[in-house]
Amino acid sequence: MVDAANPIRFGILGCAEIARKLCRAITLAPNATVVAVGSRSLDKAQRFIADNGLPPATRAYGSYEAVLDDPAVDVVYLPLPTSLHERWAVAAAERGKHVLLEKPTALCAADLDRILEACRSRGVQFMDSTMWMHHPRTARMKELLSDPNRFGQLKTIHTIFTFCGDPDFLQNDIRVKPDLDALGALGDVGWYCIRSVLWAADYELPKTAIAHHGSVKNRAGVILSCGATLVWDDGKVATFHCSFLSHLTMEVSVVGTRGTLHLSDFVIPFEETTAKFRFATDSGFKELVTGWLPLPSEHVISTDLPQEALMILEFSRLAGSIRDSGCKPDEKWPTITRKTQLVLDAVKESIEKGFEPVSITG
Amino acid sequence: MVDAANPIRFGILGCAEIARKLCRAITLAPNATVVAVGSRSLDKAQRFIADNGLPPATRAYGSYEAVLDDPAVDVVYLPLPTSLHERWAVAAAERGKHVLLEKPTALCAADLDRILEACRSRGVQFMDSTMWMHHPRTARMKELLSDPNRFGQLKTIHTIFTFCGDPDFLQNDIRVKPDLDALGALGDVGWYCIRSVLWAADYELPKTAIAHHGSVKNRAGVILSCGATLVWDDGKVATFHCSFLSHLTMEVSVVGTRGTLHLSDFVIPFEETTAKFRFATDSGFKELVTGWLPLPSEHVISTDLPQEALMILEFSRLAGSIRDSGCKPDEKWPTITRKTQLVLDAVKESIEKGFEPVSITG
Repeated sequence: MVDAANPIRFGILGCAEIARKLCRAITLAPNATVVAVGSRSLDKAQRFIADNGLPPATRAYGSYEAVLDDPAVDVVYLPLPTSLHERWAVAAAERGKHVLLEKPTALCAADLDRILEACRSRGVQFMDSTMWMHHPRTARMKELLSDPNRFGQLKTIHTIFTFCGDPDFLQNDIRVKPDLDALGALGDVGWYCIRSVLWAADYELPKTAIAHHGSVKNRAGVILSCGATLVWDDGKVATFHCSFLSHLTMEVSVVGTRGTLHLSDFVIPFEETTAKFRFATDSGFKELVTGWLPLPSEHVISTDLPQEALMILEFSRLAGSIRDSGCKPDEKWPTITRKTQLVLDAVKESIEKGFEPVSITG
Repeated sequence: MVDAANPIRFGILGCAEIARKLCRAITLAPNATVVAVGSRSLDKAQRFIADNGLPPATRAYGSYEAVLDDPAVDVVYLPLPTSLHERWAVAAAERGKHVLLEKPTALCAADLDRILEACRSRGVQFMDSTMWMHHPRTARMKELLSDPNRFGQLKTIHTIFTFCGDPDFLQNDIRVKPDLDALGALGDVGWYCIRSVLWAADYELPKTAIAHHGSVKNRAGVILSCGATLVWDDGKVATFHCSFLSHLTMEVSVVGTRGTLHLSDFVIPFEETTAKFRFATDSGFKELVTGWLPLPSEHVISTDLPQEALMILEFSRLAGSIRDSGCKPDEKWPTITRKTQLVLDAVKESIEKGFEPVSITG
C-alpha cells in the first residue's frame, strides 16, 4: 500500500523553475517522495537537490536517460519545454514509469497521442500537471454546477488568464521560443482557460472553435495574446482570452439558466490554505430600489495541503494502486488532457486560417 | 439657480415599469420634480401618479403630445419602446424640452442622429439613461484606470450582462418584439456592455466589430443572445456577451499592463448605498508556495443617493444651467451615446453578415 513507509518515488526530469514548486509538493504529499533528479548537467542536478532541501541520498544524474534507467523511480515528473515532451514522455512510459507531464502536454494532438499510446501500452498512469483541478474548491464548485435547482442548464462560460511578461521574459523565456514552446500564451495560459471551459461543460467537446481577431504573435510567430469563441451544438457558448501582455488576471464566469459562478483566482488561489468563489442562484433585482435579491453568496473552502500537493497525492494514489495492487490506469486523466489539446489545436488552426471556424473532432 | 425651490420639472412619457424607478429617482434628487405624466390612456397616467406617491397636483395627460405642450415641463423622460424614440424625442426637442432618453436610444445611428440634431438645433440637453455612469464608484474606478503607475496601458476588456427571461418575457416583453425593440438583448443588456467597454477605453472607438458565432435569435429575428470582439488599431481588444437566456450576471474585467479591475455588479450594484470593486496592481505569484503578492484590494464606495437619483441630479444640473444661466448643452453625453450606438450597429451588422468583421466609423 502507498503510504509514508512505501511512497511513490518520483524522478524529476529537468530543473525548471516550476520543478521547485512541484518538489515542495512531492515533499508535502504523504504518499510521495523525490528519489532522483536529472539534468543535462550533473552539477545543476546536485544544486537542485541541495537548494530544495531534498535528502542527501537523492540521486543526481547528469542526463534524463539515467533517471529513466533508475529502477527505484516509479514516476517521472516532466517539466521540460513542450517540444521535448513527446520524446521524453514516451521514453519514460516505455520504461514503465508513470508520467506526470507539465502543460501544454504536446505541440499538437498527434504528438500527445503517441505519448498516451505509450502509457496505455505499458499500463502506466498519465496525468497532466494542472494543479487547480485538485483543489477542494474545484470539487465544491462542480457540485453546485451539477445541481439543476441551483444552477440550471449551462449556457455560457467566460474565462481569462493573462500575465504581463517583462521585457526579459518576452525576449528570452522558453515560452516565447518557436523551437521550445511554439504554442506560446495559448499553450501556457490558454491551456488553463480551455481546461476550465471543458471542466464547466463536463468535458463535452465544443463543436467549433473560432479564434478572435486581435491576436498577437512575436516575430518568430509565437502567440503572445489570443482568444476564441467555442460553440456547442446545443447552443452553449464559451469565450476565453489569454495573454503574456496584460497584468495578472484569472477570471472564470460560468453561467447557467438559474445560477452564476464566479472566481478571480482559478489557476492559483490568492492564498494557499483558503480559496473563495461567488455563487448566485435565482437572483433578480429589487423592485424600485437598487439592489439584488438574493445577493450572491461567497463560499470559502479550506485546505490543509496546497493544490499542487493534492495533485501529487492523487497521482501517487493512482500510481500506487497500479504498482502495488495491479489496478489499471485511470482513463479519466488522459481523456481530459486529450480534449484540452484538441481544443487548443483547433484555436491555433483558426488563428492560422485568419480566424475562420475550425471543427473540433475527437 | 436650480435647487429645491426652483427645480427642473420632469414630464414622463409613458408608464413603463422602468418609469417607476425613475420617478422615485426624480423625487429623491433635490433639484428635480415630476410635474406631468403622459400615457396613451389618461386613466393609466392617473393611476401612475397615485401609485408612485406623486403629489396630486401632478398633471395626468391622456397623450404624449399633451406633455410636450405643457409649458411647465422642462425635461422629458422617455421610457417608450425603442421604435418610438425617434418620433417622440425629436418632437420633445423641437418644443424645447431637454431629453432624457432610455436605452437603447434608437434602432440605428441614423435615427439617433436625427434626435441629436433636433436637440442641437434647439439647444436642449440630451442624455441617455445609463444610470451606472453616475455612481461615484464609476468615477473612482476611472481614477485608478487613469493612473499609469497603478494600471499601466489598457490592453483588454471583458464584460457580460445577462439575465434569464422567463417564458412570459420571451413571448411577450417589448424587448423581444421586432416592431418595438428590434435590437433585443443587444440593445437592452448589450448596450451596457458596449458602454462599459467604451468607458474603459476613454471613448476611443474600436476600429472593428466581429460578432461571435453562437448568437441566438427568436423566430421574429430579434437577438436573444450574442457577443462580439472589438478591436482597436493599437492592439487593444474587448469582448462582451449579452443574453436574455442566462442567469443574471454582470461582470466587467478591465486589464492593463500593470493592473486589473473587476466588478460583478456594474449596471445595478448589489446594494443601493455601497458598491464594491476589486483592483490589483503589479500582482505576481508567491515563490514556491501558492498565493498572490500583493493581493488585489477591495474598494468600497458609499453613496447617499442611488445612482439613478445621481443621474437625475446631473441631468437637472445641466438642464438648469441652460434654463437659468443661458449655458450651452454639455456635448459629452450625446457624444458618448452616439459612440455606443455606432458600436451596437456594427455588432448587429456583423451578426447579419454571418460574423464578418465590420468597420466602425464615426
